[in-house]
Amino acid sequence: MDKVTERYSQWESQFAQANPAIDLGQVRDALKTIVIETPSWGYADSGTRFATFKQAAAAKTLRQKLEDAAQVHKYTGVAGSVAFHIPWDKTDDWREVKGWAAELGLKMGAINPNLFQDQAYKLGSLTNADPAVRAKARAHVLECIDIMRQTGSQYLSLWLADGTNYPGQDDFRARKGRLEEELAAIYSALDENMKLLIEYKFFEPAFYHTDLGDWGMATTFANKLGERALTLVDTGHHPLGTNIQHIVSFLIDEGKLGGFHFNDKKYADDDLTVGSIDPYQLFLIFCELVAGGDGKAIDVAYMIDQAHNLKPKIEAMIQSVLNIQTAYAKALLVDRKKLVSAQLAGDIIAAENTLKGAFETDVRPLLAKTRQELDRPEDPLAAYRASGYAQKAAQERG
Amino acid sequence: MDKVTERYSQWESQFAQANPAIDLGQVRDALKTIVIETPSWGYADSGTRFATFKQAAAAKTLRQKLEDAAQVHKYTGVAGSVAFHIPWDKTDDWREVKGWAAELGLKMGAINPNLFQDQAYKLGSLTNADPAVRAKARAHVLECIDIMRQTGSQYLSLWLADGTNYPGQDDFRARKGRLEEELAAIYSALDENMKLLIEYKFFEPAFYHTDLGDWGMATTFANKLGERALTLVDTGHHPLGTNIQHIVSFLIDEGKLGGFHFNDKKYADDDLTVGSIDPYQLFLIFCELVAGGDGKAIDVAYMIDQAHNLKPKIEAMIQSVLNIQTAYAKALLVDRKKLVSAQLAGDIIAAENTLKGAFETDVRPLLAKTRQELDRPEDPLAAYRASGYAQKAAQERG
Amino acid sequence: MDKVTERYSQWESQFAQANPAIDLGQVRDALKTIVIETPSWGYADSGTRFATFKQAAAAKTLRQKLEDAAQVHKYTGVAGSVAFHIPWDKTDDWREVKGWAAELGLKMGAINPNLFQDQAYKLGSLTNADPAVRAKARAHVLECIDIMRQTGSQYLSLWLADGTNYPGQDDFRARKGRLEEELAAIYSALDENMKLLIEYKFFEPAFYHTDLGDWGMATTFANKLGERALTLVDTGHHPLGTNIQHIVSFLIDEGKLGGFHFNDKKYADDDLTVGSIDPYQLFLIFCELVAGGDGKAIDVAYMIDQAHNLKPKIEAMIQSVLNIQTAYAKALLVDRKKLVSAQLAGDIIAAENTLKGAFETDVRPLLAKTRQELDRPEDPLAAYRASGYAQKAAQERG
Amino acid sequence: MDKVTERYSQWESQFAQANPAIDLGQVRDALKTIVIETPSWGYADSGTRFATFKQAAAAKTLRQKLEDAAQVHKYTGVAGSVAFHIPWDKTDDWREVKGWAAELGLKMGAINPNLFQDQAYKLGSLTNADPAVRAKARAHVLECIDIMRQTGSQYLSLWLADGTNYPGQDDFRARKGRLEEELAAIYSALDENMKLLIEYKFFEPAFYHTDLGDWGMATTFANKLGERALTLVDTGHHPLGTNIQHIVSFLIDEGKLGGFHFNDKKYADDDLTVGSIDPYQLFLIFCELVAGGDGKAIDVAYMIDQAHNLKPKIEAMIQSVLNIQTAYAKALLVDRKKLVSAQLAGDIIAAENTLKGAFETDVRPLLAKTRQELDRPEDPLAAYRASGYAQKAAQERG
Repeated sequence: MDKVTERYSQWESQFAQANPAIDLGQVRDALKTIVIETPSWGYADSGTRFATFKQAAAAKTLRQKLEDAAQVHKYTGVAGSVAFHIPWDKTDDWREVKGWAAELGLKMGAINPNLFQDQAYKLGSLTNADPAVRAKARAHVLECIDIMRQTGSQYLSLWLADGTNYPGQDDFRARKGRLEEELAAIYSALDENMKLLIEYKFFEPAFYHTDLGDWGMATTFANKLGERALTLVDTGHHPLGTNIQHIVSFLIDEGKLGGFHFNDKKYADDDLTVGSIDPYQLFLIFCELVAGGDGKAIDVAYMIDQAHNLKPKIEAMIQSVLNIQTAYAKALLVDRKKLVSAQLAGDIIAAENTLKGAFETDVRPLLAKTRQELDRPEDPLAAYRASGYAQKAAQERG
Repeated sequence: MDKVTERYSQWESQFAQANPAIDLGQVRDALKTIVIETPSWGYADSGTRFATFKQAAAAKTLRQKLEDAAQVHKYTGVAGSVAFHIPWDKTDDWREVKGWAAELGLKMGAINPNLFQDQAYKLGSLTNADPAVRAKARAHVLECIDIMRQTGSQYLSLWLADGTNYPGQDDFRARKGRLEEELAAIYSALDENMKLLIEYKFFEPAFYHTDLGDWGMATTFANKLGERALTLVDTGHHPLGTNIQHIVSFLIDEGKLGGFHFNDKKYADDDLTVGSIDPYQLFLIFCELVAGGDGKAIDVAYMIDQAHNLKPKIEAMIQSVLNIQTAYAKALLVDRKKLVSAQLAGDIIAAENTLKGAFETDVRPLLAKTRQELDRPEDPLAAYRASGYAQKAAQERG
Repeated sequence: MDKVTERYSQWESQFAQANPAIDLGQVRDALKTIVIETPSWGYADSGTRFATFKQAAAAKTLRQKLEDAAQVHKYTGVAGSVAFHIPWDKTDDWREVKGWAAELGLKMGAINPNLFQDQAYKLGSLTNADPAVRAKARAHVLECIDIMRQTGSQYLSLWLADGTNYPGQDDFRARKGRLEEELAAIYSALDENMKLLIEYKFFEPAFYHTDLGDWGMATTFANKLGERALTLVDTGHHPLGTNIQHIVSFLIDEGKLGGFHFNDKKYADDDLTVGSIDPYQLFLIFCELVAGGDGKAIDVAYMIDQAHNLKPKIEAMIQSVLNIQTAYAKALLVDRKKLVSAQLAGDIIAAENTLKGAFETDVRPLLAKTRQELDRPEDPLAAYRASGYAQKAAQERG
Repeated sequence: MDKVTERYSQWESQFAQANPAIDLGQVRDALKTIVIETPSWGYADSGTRFATFKQAAAAKTLRQKLEDAAQVHKYTGVAGSVAFHIPWDKTDDWREVKGWAAELGLKMGAINPNLFQDQAYKLGSLTNADPAVRAKARAHVLECIDIMRQTGSQYLSLWLADGTNYPGQDDFRARKGRLEEELAAIYSALDENMKLLIEYKFFEPAFYHTDLGDWGMATTFANKLGERALTLVDTGHHPLGTNIQHIVSFLIDEGKLGGFHFNDKKYADDDLTVGSIDPYQLFLIFCELVAGGDGKAIDVAYMIDQAHNLKPKIEAMIQSVLNIQTAYAKALLVDRKKLVSAQLAGDIIAAENTLKGAFETDVRPLLAKTRQELDRPEDPLAAYRASGYAQKAAQERG
């Protein structure tokens, strides 16, 4: 028996003894079949408004971004999808890109329009008072829908930076009306198999008001549009203290959860490695996703959106995937019958400890085993580091 | 010409010269016809979890609360409505209370059920896992609706303290389902002329999750119930930094704004005098209310909900009414055509300064004049202080 | 070999293989010798400003509080000290109380004056503009110092609720001057073996400003007083997002860390079970305490200060002690040489993963072993529940 | 009598009648002699991490920045000082720059080193584990001190972006030790007439911990260095809810307030126009500054630090100066004797209303008069707009 299996067996026998209700075969299956999408832009240089610290190995071309994403999938086995950002990833030949992806074992993921960078968007994009700017923004989104047709992407992932910086700068309700109109046009342009994910954000880059400022606003629009319009939760886009898992459960119950942009934060939209600041919160979010699903997390878009300004990009992305797996594995180990029974008995401590018990469990042997079953290395980060890929990339791209 | 009129005339001529578009007659009319409702519980002793500092003059009986509320109306002229809290204000004879109110010149305002104080509500009221507790809570609300029939109250003002203190304590979605069911029962018990105001709160007394945690949750329920279910905005119930005026405008646009519980805060739900910490925010909220109305603030419930733990109760309430009047008056002075024109031109500074100009205007001469027209003293606080009412109340009640 | 030892041996061999640098004997020794102090008031009923939900088993007398504290120590082995709050625990005969404590195996811990409850303190205690109120407050603290002499307590734990609710209410600098004077008088009354712990708080019950509002203010006073005046960190007394571990390390470096009031929070000073909301933060705090110590956490006062409004008191306190032990155990397992080496190499991910690796370790077998060595049950909570103590207390006290 | 004087006279007679204790001559004198320093970098393009929206009229050269700053002074009369940022404003010939400044009527203000932009500072500047990076950072600061000698600048304004993004990334105490050493070297290099202003910041660009994270840390260093090391308060660098005016008063009392970087915020370090979001807070800060001074604001560095990403630069800076003047004027109108008397009587409402009364006063006639006395236009913004300077600059620089 190899070492991974040996350690897993030992772990399994101990865990199963204490938690007879958990079907570990089902758990491993769930862990192997989740698809975590990484963002093409997460492999390129990024920074704050103060500085961008360049990394020699950072991807410069779309091909390099795909190659880097493929590395993350190669070592983790669950990151086989890539999100694109237009125009950063614009190409004349999406057929070629699909070929690369197929060759690298990657699925073409969400398309993300860019409605914040063009000089025209200074005072807003889809909410701009100027009809010409709105038309430009709408045309860009329609172009993205056309790209979806070429890439076979299922999700249009829409984040608006729109908002104002000062009281009085613009009329909230006029902007709301414009946005409603533009979203309707966008939604009606979608094919039957496409979904519109509407992202919200508390603040930044708008510093007074943001047109899609919270989940309530995003979901109000999604409800008006129809069932293929869903709300996208970016874990970093809430006021401090917000109970994100509660919002997630509310959206699941309403049938309006579209998916996630995962990252972590201590203050604002810090775009740190998911699970790096508050791993317990990430676990609690996954508890809701598992509770909403059937033996595994509910079927929505699991996407990472981070800006690794200091960490090496690919390593940080591998670490992010591992952190998500850790939270997910622990959530799968919660004995939900025991939990519900404690809840109904009003036994707060027993209910809480049912979660805590799963969270305190060391799931590394379990994850190593699922990796083995997926034919991936036990320690993805170490294996990637040992591969020399980063050094080679730095030399070639630097 | 009396002094108030003289000062007003001077003010008017200066203001009109600089702001020819503003109809000051209409402004004064708006200022005179707004009805600010004060809460019966705001005249009784209140405190924090650490201490309650007793005031000799604080009201002990319902009759005294009404008498105190009448003082606020007597000196301001715009506070002629009182909210009740059941069971704190419970009585066998609402006919008698209506008689007192009529005699004191007061309107019977919103009825506020209490779903947080009974020992049964330890783990929730309308969301409690125990059907017997839910039935008790529902029965209490139905009793309140019955009281509304006796008092002629238009608003059922529902605040739930329901929530949990720890991860896992209860199931978010199970609680949501229970709440939905109970709210439906409550809504269907309302008469045609009654409205249900659903309040939300970020946190406290629940410290992990609150079942009605934000406007999005309250409004989701209100939408499902029907058009007489509306969302109630308590200005102290948001995360720090929240753009409340944006939420207000969003709710107006959706036809779901039911009204306000006014107060101010620096940190959490501090329940301070409205306008005492951030008067500019209060002004900006009123700008939305005026924008949503037709020459005056939109017709919703304007209620005060504060806990004056240190200030003398009646004085603090008078001060609160004056602060609301100040914010409202300034909002009425905004030249909205000039504002919209600057907005459409993308002239951020001119748009902002249109608001700032109104805010910087000293509206004391204007308010003094409207008070005179309502036959009230120029300086309500000074007049109340001079009346000796507080000293007398302290002697009689202390 | 018994089951606890067997599981520990297995755990030890696995851990030691991966972490040869950690001296597990030293770790167990550290875990056994830490003293966690529980508060007498944590065994009595408590509530929010909205309601207090009574528990039949809650302690009513000082003797009962000590008996309950002894239960926590009986099952955990590391909670052998109790803090007192005056006047709640006032007695004519401290000799008798010392006798009870000795009999129950408890140490007499910190003395906490109460400067917030008396009606005289409405506008402040040591900062009050009225010299008579300041004298009263000072006299109370001096009385507490006298009690320290009788109890043999080492720590005077001073928390001030002093502050204001409104701009202008009082003069910040005048209050600062008064406080400085009073603290000097208090400090000079301390015996050589006594320490003054100065607590700070962001807000509540004061809602505009708090005289000791942050660690910087508390430490400014502590520095002026002398080396036996130290700063007390209550983990719930900071703005959201504050990096408490950074403050802790700063205070250690300045020689001014006096100790902790442990609890957890999601929003404000929620006084939840320590480690219940953000267990990673608690771990990171202990990492600083271990880094500052020599093979174990630095020698300061480790005190719990919580308000278990819903959970059964003794169970919640046992759970709190276990959560602290968990965080402490994990911090002791950090390979600090490896950490520093990664830090000096600028390898952010390796450094971070050194902490993460320790945090992901399941320390339950290790804690069970240390409990066995202290002659305590493997699962303190289950053992306490099985004892029937709560039922008996409820019957006798209810 | 001209119109400005006429309006002022009317205003003065009304104000003086109600506030006989205020010496309006002294007030006008104070308003005319404050020096507000504007930042050279405030005239160049700036943006967020998402986009920089270019302005044709934005300054590109140091000469242009000075010319733009001179415009602000030309129209306001109180902005006759400019801060420099090195290396953005680096020049071979400071004599020439001094000549320009003299010619434009400007004083050479604070020198701001840049310790965040160079690729070497990825893991810190003065706190970097690498001695070579620390040496580089120190050398840059020493170069700035040398520039101060050439420019005659009085203030070295030091802001560190130093911090970490992840738990474990670096050792807090090691960094603190390095910083202490470097600051000592810098301080000892200052001439007798120079002051070191140490700025702190809650977060950003560091997202886990910031080495100078709050006023307590900055002031701890300043205290160790000596009396010419002072703390610099940037109004946007605090957690939400922080009572900045309390910190200001505390620093004044400790003799450690060095000055301000003024701006405003709703969420994080939004760098908005000072007074645009919370004008009452700005007024309350000035109340402390006036209370600490003698008939006028205490003599510290009043500097603006903002990033006008959307507003035209010069207009926004004029607006900022006007907002500061407004807050300052109102603070000067507070009847401090009346205030203190109400405070000592424990009359919270009277005390608060003393401030409120000043805040509600329309100070535009007063400011117009002081501008007239300084030979500046009544409405600086309108006069600047009418001058055509922006159009000309856009043409020449665009």
